[in-house]
Amino acid sequence: MMVEVLSIGNELLMGKTVNTNASWIADRVTRLGGLIRRITVIGDDLDEIASALKEAALRGAKLIITTGGLGPTHDDKTMEGIARALNVPLELNEEALRMLEAKVRVRAPQVRKMAYLPRGAEPLQNPVGAAPGALVKLGEASIVALPGVPSEMKAMFELHVEPLIKEGVEEAFYEAEATLIGIYEADLAPIMEEVLKRDPTLYIKSHPKLEGGVSIIKLHVACRSLNLEKGKRKVEEALKHILGIAKAKGARVEES
Amino acid sequence: MMVEVLSIGNELLMGKTVNTNASWIADRVTRLGGLIRRITVIGDDLDEIASALKEAALRGAKLIITTGGLGPTHDDKTMEGIARALNVPLELNEEALRMLEAKVRVRAPQVRKMAYLPRGAEPLQNPVGAAPGALVKLGEASIVALPGVPSEMKAMFELHVEPLIKEGVEEAFYEAEATLIGIYEADLAPIMEEVLKRDPTLYIKSHPKLEGGVSIIKLHVACRSLNLEKGKRKVEEALKHILGIAKAKGARVEES
Repeated sequence: MMVEVLSIGNELLMGKTVNTNASWIADRVTRLGGLIRRITVIGDDLDEIASALKEAALRGAKLIITTGGLGPTHDDKTMEGIARALNVPLELNEEALRMLEAKVRVRAPQVRKMAYLPRGAEPLQNPVGAAPGALVKLGEASIVALPGVPSEMKAMFELHVEPLIKEGVEEAFYEAEATLIGIYEADLAPIMEEVLKRDPTLYIKSHPKLEGGVSIIKLHVACRSLNLEKGKRKVEEALKHILGIAKAKGARVEES
Repeated sequence: MMVEVLSIGNELLMGKTVNTNASWIADRVTRLGGLIRRITVIGDDLDEIASALKEAALRGAKLIITTGGLGPTHDDKTMEGIARALNVPLELNEEALRMLEAKVRVRAPQVRKMAYLPRGAEPLQNPVGAAPGALVKLGEASIVALPGVPSEMKAMFELHVEPLIKEGVEEAFYEAEATLIGIYEADLAPIMEEVLKRDPTLYIKSHPKLEGGVSIIKLHVACRSLNLEKGKRKVEEALKHILGIAKAKGARVEES
């Protein structure tokens, strides 16, 4: 299941905020067996939101998760951007209004704004904050709009997005890691290449760093498989093989 | 000066790594007066790298900063992806080879790989690690390829990218922040809207959170201007105005 993340907010483009929402979502989606194809960060701009959504749908994403831009202020434009991508009007959604009224006094137009969704959208309950989310279809893609406040985003992901991914995913994901101390990445590269040549369905990645002049490599081996047990066996055998050769080359190994 | 960031690495799409490189770059570019239009995160995939670069150039980016994928392993594909976007071959760059030889023993093909750049690229010295970066033109856009290891990326940004941005930027950037305690975002929104209506060149954003049932809003006001003093004055007056009304509504204010 191909998933894209669209992070919306000028604060991300100005470097005011580190995009921990995207990495949290990417981690969850990956563990659930989904495949994140792309993460796009854009500003609070209607045209940018609409075009980024259409581009993701054209690339074949089955699920597009947006974060941010659902609040009461002038620059919260996600719902309007989605409406523009779908070419439908933004209108007061009675169900969203009821969700909102259960949380806050809806008097000021800035509050009421949070109950305006693209026509045809399904409002999604926000168990933590006020602003409801939304689920809509854009061609083959489902768009889920979540808030940018991390606690709200996470609660709504678990409530509304996890079931969608579980439903759409056929493959299982298995991963293992180890730390190699005292070996250089360039010396590890040919071993990794050989293992990958034998089984290109594996994912193998090395993350090097130097600490006090000592080379430390975090090695990550993972696999997607229709059969979890088979994937697990492949990952464990590949890791064992690489670690064996690395040890023979003088590396110290810490498995995790 | 319109800038885009392209973060390359499967580990980012799997949520293994939080994209602190992108937020660091975004912060630096913004302070230098550049404007980040979009941050795109993709995997270690040649077609994805090539198409993401071409898309950014088509959107009118003057500078595209890539991070990641310059190392010795099988999945370090950035230089090849750039070559594909430019439709030129990847070839051994003698200057890059000399940079590499000054750092490491270049014997294994995996090490030598790091001296292969797109034809016509200018190699960029890496004062911290081994892999050289590269500077190339794609239409009107300059592409700068930096490593993904944060210490290497930061040193190379300061050495090679800052001068490019300073050269291309005409506007100055000024910003100020304050924390408002005990006021809701929906109550602040009309004040922000009124200030923005009077001066749409201002950037005003509120970041709400709840702590122990108390609403806390971080308010961020910024401005781009050809004249730094003028920008500073506009930001300070807008902030003072908003804080004055917020205080009258019962908020406690901490300026920073």
